[in-house]
Amino acid sequence: MFRFGVPRLLLITVLPLAAQMDLPLMPWPAKIVRGIGHFAVDTKLTVSATGAGADDPRVRSATIRFLARLAKQTKIEVPQQIAANPAIFSIVVDGATSGVQKYGDDESYRLIVTPQNVRLTAAEPLGALRGLETFLQLSVNSSVPAVDITDHPRFGWRGLSLDVSRHFLSVAAVKRAIDGLAAVKMNVFHWHLSDDQGFRIESKKFPLLHRRGSEGLYYTQAQVRDVIAYARDRGVRVVPEFDIPGHATSWFVGYPHLASGKGPYRVLKKTGVFAATMDPTRETTYTFLDGFIGEMAALFPDAYFHIGGDEVAPKGEWSRSLAIKAFMRKNKYTSLNTLQAYFNRRVMAIVTKHGKRMEGWDEILYPDLPKNIVIQSWQGQKSLADAAREGYSGILSAGYYLDLMEPAGKHYVVDPLKGETANLTPEQQKLVMGGEAAMWEELATEENIDAKLWPRTAAIAERLWSPAEVNEVAAMYRRLAPVSTWLETQGMQHRTQLAFMLKRLAGSHPVAPLADFASILEPVKGYVRHESQPYKSLGGTMLMNRLVDSIPPESDVARDFNAAVDRFLATHSTADDQLVRRQLTASRDNVPRLLPILTSEKLLLEHLKVAADVLDLCKAGLEALDAFRDGTKMSANRPVYLERIAELANGRADVLIQIAPGVLKLIEAAPH
Amino acid sequence: MFRFGVPRLLLITVLPLAAQMDLPLMPWPAKIVRGIGHFAVDTKLTVSATGAGADDPRVRSATIRFLARLAKQTKIEVPQQIAANPAIFSIVVDGATSGVQKYGDDESYRLIVTPQNVRLTAAEPLGALRGLETFLQLSVNSSVPAVDITDHPRFGWRGLSLDVSRHFLSVAAVKRAIDGLAAVKMNVFHWHLSDDQGFRIESKKFPLLHRRGSEGLYYTQAQVRDVIAYARDRGVRVVPEFDIPGHATSWFVGYPHLASGKGPYRVLKKTGVFAATMDPTRETTYTFLDGFIGEMAALFPDAYFHIGGDEVAPKGEWSRSLAIKAFMRKNKYTSLNTLQAYFNRRVMAIVTKHGKRMEGWDEILYPDLPKNIVIQSWQGQKSLADAAREGYSGILSAGYYLDLMEPAGKHYVVDPLKGETANLTPEQQKLVMGGEAAMWEELATEENIDAKLWPRTAAIAERLWSPAEVNEVAAMYRRLAPVSTWLETQGMQHRTQLAFMLKRLAGSHPVAPLADFASILEPVKGYVRHESQPYKSLGGTMLMNRLVDSIPPESDVARDFNAAVDRFLATHSTADDQLVRRQLTASRDNVPRLLPILTSEKLLLEHLKVAADVLDLCKAGLEALDAFRDGTKMSANRPVYLERIAELANGRADVLIQIAPGVLKLIEAAPH
Repeated sequence: MFRFGVPRLLLITVLPLAAQMDLPLMPWPAKIVRGIGHFAVDTKLTVSATGAGADDPRVRSATIRFLARLAKQTKIEVPQQIAANPAIFSIVVDGATSGVQKYGDDESYRLIVTPQNVRLTAAEPLGALRGLETFLQLSVNSSVPAVDITDHPRFGWRGLSLDVSRHFLSVAAVKRAIDGLAAVKMNVFHWHLSDDQGFRIESKKFPLLHRRGSEGLYYTQAQVRDVIAYARDRGVRVVPEFDIPGHATSWFVGYPHLASGKGPYRVLKKTGVFAATMDPTRETTYTFLDGFIGEMAALFPDAYFHIGGDEVAPKGEWSRSLAIKAFMRKNKYTSLNTLQAYFNRRVMAIVTKHGKRMEGWDEILYPDLPKNIVIQSWQGQKSLADAAREGYSGILSAGYYLDLMEPAGKHYVVDPLKGETANLTPEQQKLVMGGEAAMWEELATEENIDAKLWPRTAAIAERLWSPAEVNEVAAMYRRLAPVSTWLETQGMQHRTQLAFMLKRLAGSHPVAPLADFASILEPVKGYVRHESQPYKSLGGTMLMNRLVDSIPPESDVARDFNAAVDRFLATHSTADDQLVRRQLTASRDNVPRLLPILTSEKLLLEHLKVAADVLDLCKAGLEALDAFRDGTKMSANRPVYLERIAELANGRADVLIQIAPGVLKLIEAAPH
Repeated sequence: MFRFGVPRLLLITVLPLAAQMDLPLMPWPAKIVRGIGHFAVDTKLTVSATGAGADDPRVRSATIRFLARLAKQTKIEVPQQIAANPAIFSIVVDGATSGVQKYGDDESYRLIVTPQNVRLTAAEPLGALRGLETFLQLSVNSSVPAVDITDHPRFGWRGLSLDVSRHFLSVAAVKRAIDGLAAVKMNVFHWHLSDDQGFRIESKKFPLLHRRGSEGLYYTQAQVRDVIAYARDRGVRVVPEFDIPGHATSWFVGYPHLASGKGPYRVLKKTGVFAATMDPTRETTYTFLDGFIGEMAALFPDAYFHIGGDEVAPKGEWSRSLAIKAFMRKNKYTSLNTLQAYFNRRVMAIVTKHGKRMEGWDEILYPDLPKNIVIQSWQGQKSLADAAREGYSGILSAGYYLDLMEPAGKHYVVDPLKGETANLTPEQQKLVMGGEAAMWEELATEENIDAKLWPRTAAIAERLWSPAEVNEVAAMYRRLAPVSTWLETQGMQHRTQLAFMLKRLAGSHPVAPLADFASILEPVKGYVRHESQPYKSLGGTMLMNRLVDSIPPESDVARDFNAAVDRFLATHSTADDQLVRRQLTASRDNVPRLLPILTSEKLLLEHLKVAADVLDLCKAGLEALDAFRDGTKMSANRPVYLERIAELANGRADVLIQIAPGVLKLIEAAPH
């Protein structure tokens, strides 16, 4: 007895949080208890699905996809059919749901992995989908640690708002984004379908909208239905947005009588806040909107309908039109805000008539609107708190703008219930439904969209799903690295897209020196690039193919470097000296190899100065390191170094050299 | 006068053919006259489209796409609108066409590029589309050589047959393939939608076809319509194939009464020729087919409808069924061929009733079928010639099977009008409509499909478009390299797919040693792999993720190496000695770096012996080279070397070391 060892039991043990958080999970589950041993994925795996909800097509197709994805990522020939019960991996879905996926649908699940088998239970189909993603993340290689996970989301609205107007995205890119959302348990795809720069959906009632408003780059209704079905299959709602009354120039190209000005109108190629605004005074505007919203409300099954409502230009057509001034006088509207509130009430009546709940950006909030609207806030928690105190629901997008090229860690610490919303009563806090990452496409294209979305969206997904206490940035980054690789195996192209673009820039030269150079760069942050010379001088196409477009928002190399500098300054350890020194030496020695590439391609010429900056920066940093090591003083150049590094913070060629902050710290602290 | 140089005129000059063929064009045009100077693509480019055919949506959308593609590949901000006439680049389309694209539609065009401007004229819209592709190939960088091209296809049917049954391909992969076909001026996408391993299209009339026949991997009719519109927009016809009465197991899973046997049936996971065959004796079979073909004929607008008809298993259900034997006796059918001819006549009546022309593989040819059917030949030119003599039209696919992993050069020399068809009268030769590359998917997946299709399909496209005299293999390869890179910029993923797969195999190791090793390997050829142990032992999923799946069909490194060996043996030049020596040394020295990678991944273990073979092969080759250089004799091991190299021709781990033929030649010729 027991001759061959102790019987294999699942010995539940509770490890300290830090030790537990070594699993490559994102979002981190609500509760996780580690077991002992591992479950091995192999060619004999059987997966069953039972319970009242198991016949839901979403569960069946997610399970089939799960088997294919599991086989792909583990490289093991896992059988590709749903097996009969009892199976090694049993999925039990207690309750069936039907109809359109709703905000608040139950997404909870429990996943128990023992060395012998796996059991995934969920109250409803969505929970099963979420649990399958967790198992996939756990099984990046075929050995899955024993765990008992009890999980549910903190917020019911976790989404991505994606602008397809400024730069169009193909159906393939949209579906890939939805795959990614589902992989990190997000549940809303918010489709920003119209703006000044393009009307991106076919209207059968008003065909000049897409014909004249898009130059042929739009989704047919068949494609839209296909995307909606695709998203539903993955537990993701699709909320359409049609931005009115501002941001609507593309409507007016085909239907100029909708506008408050005289026209003629053209689809805009530049970005900004423009004068053209829908005319709120004419009844024909509302007749048109009734027809259009009716058509779209029938196409999009979701309960919510987003009407934008942001950024009506303060000195735009409304303030220039005599007819509008007369209308305001007649109705005693004293401000453009009051006028927009009137417009919103009218639109709200139409949206409601067609069976939808209206959603809009902060600006739609005005005292006399009914309480069932939803505010998406680009302004921040205060705006959400103000709304909640008035009884309005809202979601947070401020702090989650992916186009600002901020690091994942910065988005990660933004919490819908921190800041002003923390002071709300629990009842009011319930009105904060969640949040949405937002990706505006002025500076992104089909070529690099994945690199803008991933892996940063995973960090935001964790903020919106996981308990508020899961908030340590360093721990997030430790998990983000393997999750980023996992997302790549799930089809996201964030790395391959940029590799291709770099290769194109390198032309016939070897790409490695350019890639090494690029690895310490980041795009300038915020709206700096919108004001920069290269952007302002852009022609019609808004082609995005410079080096700044070919690098990720965030440099892992630079983050590691700066962390090593911090450790070195704290401990003066040889290991960290070596790490820092190696990076500086490598970046310095790379410059001579880089120059022939930079001079061979017109688009790279702007980086000759950046390369010179890198060279000087590395030399200065190495001098500081030597001063520490040798106990000598830095040269008289030190003030010059400090001055030049300060200048680097402005960026050049729309990039930042992101090892500069670390070098600056070294020089500031070095003996002098 | 003329103070600043001679006036810039287009000085037409006729260069010798070889000198002309340096342009990266594929297919090579019917006639090309080189001018002097270059046209520069810049941000001031304007493109107009005029003529009766210019309002065709295909011309408009191709022009818009052209502008985007031109900007992308040149990296220049070319304006993205169609301009008013007169423009720098004027497209003139004389005649309008309407309705469904047909075999024989005019695809001719003339493209005149001078240093000042570009003029593209075409009789009909399709010609404009073809001419735009030519200009794009010419403008890989922004400087376009002055040319006068007069071009038209040699054959009117130039296509790709793509199997989506054995391994399903997403809509995105299908559209990418269509993009590629259009880029190399092919005009038929032949969609092999059903086979024993999967029924890949939604049927609203008989939903159990896709529901039970596909495990959820099928195209909805909305997706199919979308693909057809996408292809039409690019000048590509879509011909559907539903293979009957053999290769039809997937039909029988949902509708077993269609089969000649008792069932039950399951979707097959293995490949081969199977027993299950449609029952030709029951009237219910034809009632069903009438309903199904009617549904599909309404969905697919093309004039042709492919019913497969190949490979009815000789010892399958037909020869086992007593009912079928009785039916044959009653009708005095003496062979299964006669029975299939009866079946085909019945199917033909249905296809004709629904307004289509029937197409099928060689086997459908039987004396009493009407002459308007089309034969797609997998058997060769003799089969086509026999058909033509009887008055039947045909297209060639024998010699163009991409799944056999043959090099581009081998397909390139296969000509529909060489061999037996060369002896036909000109009138009979007109019945040879063209050809189709064919990609069967037993061993390919969504992950690596592009690498199976590209760039080899471009060589076949040239055979079918260009004059027969354009047939020099070396010249084709010189152009294939830049065209392959161009196809990458047009969205084909043949390189990135494999790079990703190699990276996955390398895991946490650097991928370079694995990539270097892989660069001299090719998959075994023909059907060898179907019979190999690893394939036969495959489980249910037919996962294709071994090293053999992660390399291109053709090794450029090995081709260059073997060519260098040939030159060396002819001239004994030091330059070629160096080339050969460098490759052998590099491959030899790579092995120690490679071994830790091979041992770290289960899927790579089979390559330990291959790596040992490479090591020995390189050592032997270097010994032979030294013998040449030093005028000494090779060691006594020479016979052993020769024997071992002979063994390598069988392949190992389903790959061939493709530098082996060159090394063999070296050793055979070396002093001994």
